[in-house]
Amino acid sequence: MSQDDKTNQQWGGRFSEPTDAFVQRFTASIQFDQRLYRHDIQGSIAHATMLEKAGVLTAEEKDKIINGLNEVQADIEAGKIEWSIPLEDVHMNVESALTDKIGITGKKLHTGRSRNDQVATDIRLWLRDEIDSISNEMTRLQAGLIDLAANEADTIMPGFTHLQTAQPVTFGHHLLAWNEMLERDFGRLQDCRKRLNQSPLGAAALAGTTYPIDRSLTAELLGFDKPTENSLDSVSDRDFAIEFCAFASLLLTHMSRMSEELVLWTSAQFDFIELPDRFCTGSSIMPQKKNPDVPELVRGKTGRVNGHLFSLLTLMKSQPLAYNKDNQEDKEPLFDAVNTVSDCLRAFADMIPAIRSKKASMLEAATRGFSTATDLADYLVRKGIPFRDSHEIVGKSVAYGIEQGKDLSEMSLEELQQFSDTIGADVFDVLTLEGSVAARNHIGGTAPDQVRQAAERARQLVAAR
Amino acid sequence: MSQDDKTNQQWGGRFSEPTDAFVQRFTASIQFDQRLYRHDIQGSIAHATMLEKAGVLTAEEKDKIINGLNEVQADIEAGKIEWSIPLEDVHMNVESALTDKIGITGKKLHTGRSRNDQVATDIRLWLRDEIDSISNEMTRLQAGLIDLAANEADTIMPGFTHLQTAQPVTFGHHLLAWNEMLERDFGRLQDCRKRLNQSPLGAAALAGTTYPIDRSLTAELLGFDKPTENSLDSVSDRDFAIEFCAFASLLLTHMSRMSEELVLWTSAQFDFIELPDRFCTGSSIMPQKKNPDVPELVRGKTGRVNGHLFSLLTLMKSQPLAYNKDNQEDKEPLFDAVNTVSDCLRAFADMIPAIRSKKASMLEAATRGFSTATDLADYLVRKGIPFRDSHEIVGKSVAYGIEQGKDLSEMSLEELQQFSDTIGADVFDVLTLEGSVAARNHIGGTAPDQVRQAAERARQLVAAR
Amino acid sequence: MSQDDKTNQQWGGRFSEPTDAFVQRFTASIQFDQRLYRHDIQGSIAHATMLEKAGVLTAEEKDKIINGLNEVQADIEAGKIEWSIPLEDVHMNVESALTDKIGITGKKLHTGRSRNDQVATDIRLWLRDEIDSISNEMTRLQAGLIDLAANEADTIMPGFTHLQTAQPVTFGHHLLAWNEMLERDFGRLQDCRKRLNQSPLGAAALAGTTYPIDRSLTAELLGFDKPTENSLDSVSDRDFAIEFCAFASLLLTHMSRMSEELVLWTSAQFDFIELPDRFCTGSSIMPQKKNPDVPELVRGKTGRVNGHLFSLLTLMKSQPLAYNKDNQEDKEPLFDAVNTVSDCLRAFADMIPAIRSKKASMLEAATRGFSTATDLADYLVRKGIPFRDSHEIVGKSVAYGIEQGKDLSEMSLEELQQFSDTIGADVFDVLTLEGSVAARNHIGGTAPDQVRQAAERARQLVAAR
Amino acid sequence: MSQDDKTNQQWGGRFSEPTDAFVQRFTASIQFDQRLYRHDIQGSIAHATMLEKAGVLTAEEKDKIINGLNEVQADIEAGKIEWSIPLEDVHMNVESALTDKIGITGKKLHTGRSRNDQVATDIRLWLRDEIDSISNEMTRLQAGLIDLAANEADTIMPGFTHLQTAQPVTFGHHLLAWNEMLERDFGRLQDCRKRLNQSPLGAAALAGTTYPIDRSLTAELLGFDKPTENSLDSVSDRDFAIEFCAFASLLLTHMSRMSEELVLWTSAQFDFIELPDRFCTGSSIMPQKKNPDVPELVRGKTGRVNGHLFSLLTLMKSQPLAYNKDNQEDKEPLFDAVNTVSDCLRAFADMIPAIRSKKASMLEAATRGFSTATDLADYLVRKGIPFRDSHEIVGKSVAYGIEQGKDLSEMSLEELQQFSDTIGADVFDVLTLEGSVAARNHIGGTAPDQVRQAAERARQLVAAR
Repeated sequence: MSQDDKTNQQWGGRFSEPTDAFVQRFTASIQFDQRLYRHDIQGSIAHATMLEKAGVLTAEEKDKIINGLNEVQADIEAGKIEWSIPLEDVHMNVESALTDKIGITGKKLHTGRSRNDQVATDIRLWLRDEIDSISNEMTRLQAGLIDLAANEADTIMPGFTHLQTAQPVTFGHHLLAWNEMLERDFGRLQDCRKRLNQSPLGAAALAGTTYPIDRSLTAELLGFDKPTENSLDSVSDRDFAIEFCAFASLLLTHMSRMSEELVLWTSAQFDFIELPDRFCTGSSIMPQKKNPDVPELVRGKTGRVNGHLFSLLTLMKSQPLAYNKDNQEDKEPLFDAVNTVSDCLRAFADMIPAIRSKKASMLEAATRGFSTATDLADYLVRKGIPFRDSHEIVGKSVAYGIEQGKDLSEMSLEELQQFSDTIGADVFDVLTLEGSVAARNHIGGTAPDQVRQAAERARQLVAAR
Repeated sequence: MSQDDKTNQQWGGRFSEPTDAFVQRFTASIQFDQRLYRHDIQGSIAHATMLEKAGVLTAEEKDKIINGLNEVQADIEAGKIEWSIPLEDVHMNVESALTDKIGITGKKLHTGRSRNDQVATDIRLWLRDEIDSISNEMTRLQAGLIDLAANEADTIMPGFTHLQTAQPVTFGHHLLAWNEMLERDFGRLQDCRKRLNQSPLGAAALAGTTYPIDRSLTAELLGFDKPTENSLDSVSDRDFAIEFCAFASLLLTHMSRMSEELVLWTSAQFDFIELPDRFCTGSSIMPQKKNPDVPELVRGKTGRVNGHLFSLLTLMKSQPLAYNKDNQEDKEPLFDAVNTVSDCLRAFADMIPAIRSKKASMLEAATRGFSTATDLADYLVRKGIPFRDSHEIVGKSVAYGIEQGKDLSEMSLEELQQFSDTIGADVFDVLTLEGSVAARNHIGGTAPDQVRQAAERARQLVAAR
Repeated sequence: MSQDDKTNQQWGGRFSEPTDAFVQRFTASIQFDQRLYRHDIQGSIAHATMLEKAGVLTAEEKDKIINGLNEVQADIEAGKIEWSIPLEDVHMNVESALTDKIGITGKKLHTGRSRNDQVATDIRLWLRDEIDSISNEMTRLQAGLIDLAANEADTIMPGFTHLQTAQPVTFGHHLLAWNEMLERDFGRLQDCRKRLNQSPLGAAALAGTTYPIDRSLTAELLGFDKPTENSLDSVSDRDFAIEFCAFASLLLTHMSRMSEELVLWTSAQFDFIELPDRFCTGSSIMPQKKNPDVPELVRGKTGRVNGHLFSLLTLMKSQPLAYNKDNQEDKEPLFDAVNTVSDCLRAFADMIPAIRSKKASMLEAATRGFSTATDLADYLVRKGIPFRDSHEIVGKSVAYGIEQGKDLSEMSLEELQQFSDTIGADVFDVLTLEGSVAARNHIGGTAPDQVRQAAERARQLVAAR
Repeated sequence: MSQDDKTNQQWGGRFSEPTDAFVQRFTASIQFDQRLYRHDIQGSIAHATMLEKAGVLTAEEKDKIINGLNEVQADIEAGKIEWSIPLEDVHMNVESALTDKIGITGKKLHTGRSRNDQVATDIRLWLRDEIDSISNEMTRLQAGLIDLAANEADTIMPGFTHLQTAQPVTFGHHLLAWNEMLERDFGRLQDCRKRLNQSPLGAAALAGTTYPIDRSLTAELLGFDKPTENSLDSVSDRDFAIEFCAFASLLLTHMSRMSEELVLWTSAQFDFIELPDRFCTGSSIMPQKKNPDVPELVRGKTGRVNGHLFSLLTLMKSQPLAYNKDNQEDKEPLFDAVNTVSDCLRAFADMIPAIRSKKASMLEAATRGFSTATDLADYLVRKGIPFRDSHEIVGKSVAYGIEQGKDLSEMSLEELQQFSDTIGADVFDVLTLEGSVAARNHIGGTAPDQVRQAAERARQLVAAR
């Protein structure tokens, strides 16, 4: 990056000494906002098109500018542009490259706008594209997850509360719980997109401009739903960045929950699933290790996006209107949040369909821990005992079972009848795992048929996007 | 609160010693979740109604339960119930009061549900009500703000960027920028409501229940759009609390920005507005003080809701499914976020319409600081000078003005012509404040006519809610 | 709490209308700062004592005030004082009660101070006391933990990285890792105390006072190390609250890590320890459940203190000097952080010594998962093979073992020699768990002798406090 | 960065397929941890030195390794090393470069350690160096600040509470309030350094090593105070990163407060100071603008470090021991926090001494706003009126002054006597600004003499570091 070949001529008239070199670097944003070059040029092309319609530029000037901008874009992509720190940001760098190419006409492009509305436009355009990519990746992840869930609709595993064995569930049912989280996240992302898709272009520095601009036209050219309503708000609003990061924090929080379970399930103690070697790494010192790096890292990256959310909330707190230099700090957290979300989704979308369930191990775990105790209690209720009393009866049976080292289904009828003579021989039907899961046969329940129906509904929702 | 009159009989069968007294208090939630009693009873009534339809309760049992619950509610509201810590939470306390009243039938109410789905239902019902109240208060605040803005559509004040005088704007325009923030917040709140309005009732402990429940019926009875899709997700999901707190953080961030400006504007240095004495307090030591306590406190409370958001994100991070005791920690942050938002909105909805602008002081401030420099630059562009060059010319004029202690409009034509002979006598038309604001006459611009139209559009949006 | 019996006469002279009733409640702090009454009175007694030495009060006035304050304290503790919202805060309420008691002399107490330095003094005094209690509770927890560790110095369990079996360690060694975290936390807490222990009293509103006060005397009377250096800083500084919350966040983060392990270890899958029934609770629906509520709740409360830390950081961000009303929001987060830390420490200090290790289960787990693979690699290195090559050899042995379902110690010499003929019959000595742990015999290593020595060093450190 | 020239041979023995290319990039850290190369090599040299003393390496091997490492370092600094993603991290990259240079002996370096203790050592060494640099920069900033304060000890300005004029103070006094914040920050930084300065080297993967290592020797060679006490803790502890970020958050919070004031003071409304042009930038559209970019940006960067603190707290929450892959996420937040702190300190250390106070403007502001009202109240107290009553009297005088547009010092004796006949002609002595500040003549007060003494004490503290 070059620091000495250009001067900050753009605003120097009132200044009596040049900016300190360290301050120049400290206050410049070109080091990171160069990422916006494509959207900056896209916005400038729309602006030039409008300026010609408004009579501010001639048709010739407009063409010259647009052709020039396209050449600048090609130069950037060919690595021919050296970004300059004294030119501060991507806007000045692009404009300077344009003026180098087409001369004095290039200087007319900035008519009727300011860097304040320009950067607001650029970020919105860029983020909208990223949201669309992320939406696609979410869809890919959910589609893979739903397929896996449908395949695992009959696989029995222990369901946990407090990480203690609670009731048997099916693995497919568990996976669909993950899908529900993602489905809500997808909704939040679309809501965020809807709110950001308004054009701030034309707000100029803060108050609008004296040129006869047509904000609806630039909005339309750029695919925005409409122009924003207030110029002061347009240049100072960063809600979209915060709302995106709030989405990202919740998504990663969900992915951290999935990750936690993947890590647990690949431990020797749980041993419920196997992750393919290609998603794992080993140890430089312990030759036996196969570590679930991908979910661990995704779990860790939750901190990263939470941090960015709080960074942005702190940033905006108590800022008076309109634009303040503080706002330049909006970009790096947002950029990194987008990168993190994209990478984590890609890793999961690749990995989830490759999960191999260890059905025998899951089933074995479900038979331990008195997972059908609730079924026994429900059985007693159906025989006329109030729930709270049946709970007490089963509690005592379990205490006996712990003492004797026997699960409920392993006790004889006589043993069970010690605790209630209401218990009959038909009790053993409800004490099987298959019976237990099949009995939870309502919307949202873990019965395999319900799981298959739920998977189908989920698949249709995703397909309808 | 009583700690010794009841035992935790609800789950004691398997336990060999009673819970430690400190642990009882430490793990109980009745100290704060008593707030949910009304929604707990509302959910129980729907559940009982459904159980009768499903054939689990007789009509007589159902009536007994519903009448009993209504009596319990009346007792609570009459202060006749002493909450018990050994009964842990609002659910157990209500059920115990019911059983005291109607005997053994009361124990049947808990059939086909668990405290896990019960509390999820209660919080959603409670939060939905609070969201509706908050929506109303936001509407009241916005209506008052828009009226004030319409009244101040012609009031000229300096617009700031970097807290430096930038360009003249109107006070009404500035106030409408605040309204835009609130309008987006309102949208986020409605999106949150939409997503939370599904019924988790029937998810039971985590896997659904073996009773022939009808989840669609309870959903309908409770005004939910539909039942949730997955039982594991239903008992472990706290997205609604996080999404609400994300809304609240952004709302308070906006209110902190408004507050910052109110504090600035009431300072002796700005002196732009007056707040009525009834919204201010004094000092115990400095007799002259009149402090803008309300905005200061609102600004400070931003930290509070940000903290709650982060608290909940930390809480949910890496929790394996389904319900864990950690989740009990969801309530206090959410409750306090709701309280804070409600109080701050009420304070602002009362105070904003009572703001009195000090028009002369605002106008005087706008005449200082070369606020029409951009207008001069635009004038030169209209005379054919490229924008970047006209910027340089005006920059030099300003440097001269600082040296001479003269604003642009105070210079003679000769003085101005030192910097460009393109400047003619018509320049003085663009250097007036009225001319400057009126010229920014496009959607979102600060021209008084635009402000009036924007206020009207905003008013219609609010009215259409 | 009463809202109408007193007027805010303390600062009303310049005001033309009374404070709005809602605003009164919204801006009052007496609802929560009443907690400071004892320290408020303690500070006032020191102030009165100094004022007499300075000649501002007569000896008689001083005695009257001090006696009056002691009576007010007794009244508060006897529940005879009704806190008043119009009197705003604990300072005004105490002073008003004093004046009711001793008449006009009571009004002289506020000479030479302001509520700004008064509240800063109160919180520091209060927090210092709380820090001392918390320090004691930390010591109790650490002492219990170290004793348990010493008792478990020989208990072998699998050590994990990435939650995959890594190498055998001893349970005592693992517990001492927890103690190291707590030891650092203790150090941070003492550093926080050291920095807060300076007296802001005498800073008055912001600039000091015109009375001939003696700040060193009040500092000494209140047990502070010295007066603070700068009055503006004294009334606006809340570093101590933030530093305490940073300590609390890190402590709870550590306790969340311990909690996570306690929850894992009590699961059916790990089954490493048993928690006494008195620290657990059951389920209202699943009769077999015994849930590790205490560690789960402690884990959840991490969010709470993190939230408070962030709340306070947001609060102080960008506040201009000196005191602003925002600062009133410092108390509730700090109070709740102190409560949370105290309760969590108490729960752990009670529970940790009652943990019962399941030695057979731990040992069995350690024999699985190729935990001695590193020992085999080290054995090969001692035979002259470079580490990276021996790693490769062992990696292949493990792959073979997974395929064959055999741990390393279960393979025959011939089987092992397939991978390297350097392996001799002495290899089986290093493949035992006892041999493995005993061999890590250096400071910080897991060898039982090292663990005992480390426990002894830790015990001495704690004893020396 | 290269992705295909090396394989992850370091741990491949047990793996049946290579790592997925995307996963390789996703899990690699070399992209950012290359920054640690110098400290990685420093640690390796100490480790090799110790291994020779312990008899694990021959003198010849040790020399070969150390010379090789020095050459690798030279190669890195000459840009001759291409970092490889399949080699994952800086440790593997350096070791691979070493082995390329010296052959099989290079593979022996990793004996008796693991990447887990290696990275913990590297970060501590690196952070210790950064802390020392930051300490120096803080000292430079404080020295400049104290000098400025001493020069401005007599400059009168209004002191604010609630941003309302409160009492006159001196500018030097205000600046010393900033120094107090920084002084506490410096203390926290040294406490952090003290706690981090222990050597984790020798903890190996998690349990220590079977080689006869001497941890005290490597600790001494690396300038650590001693080895850490527990191997499990050593590889899983990231307290130092969190403690540093907590320091950084508080420092930036303080700098955000200074920045807020600098921004206020350079506004046209306050106009208290001038910042040299070289620390400011202009506007691309408004030719008159001179924006205080440096303080604005520093204020904004508070969010950045707050975000990193919360990122790390989230990261560590609930992680079971010992090392997990999540921990790799510790580096980027820490690195960026260090960069941000360093840059902001440098910018302030350069800028603060260049602040030019506008004394006339400050003085003029202090004469407005009834800033001597407290002095009048104190005057009345000295005449025998209880403070609370004198407060009321002055409050009424102020109300009269507001009505009449007169400050207290502008009223005639008769006018003042309307409110209390205790007021005599000597009242005008206390109503001057010079009298007001001079009267606050005690430790920490704003009297110019006190400010000079305080500056001298501060200077000595800084000099004694």
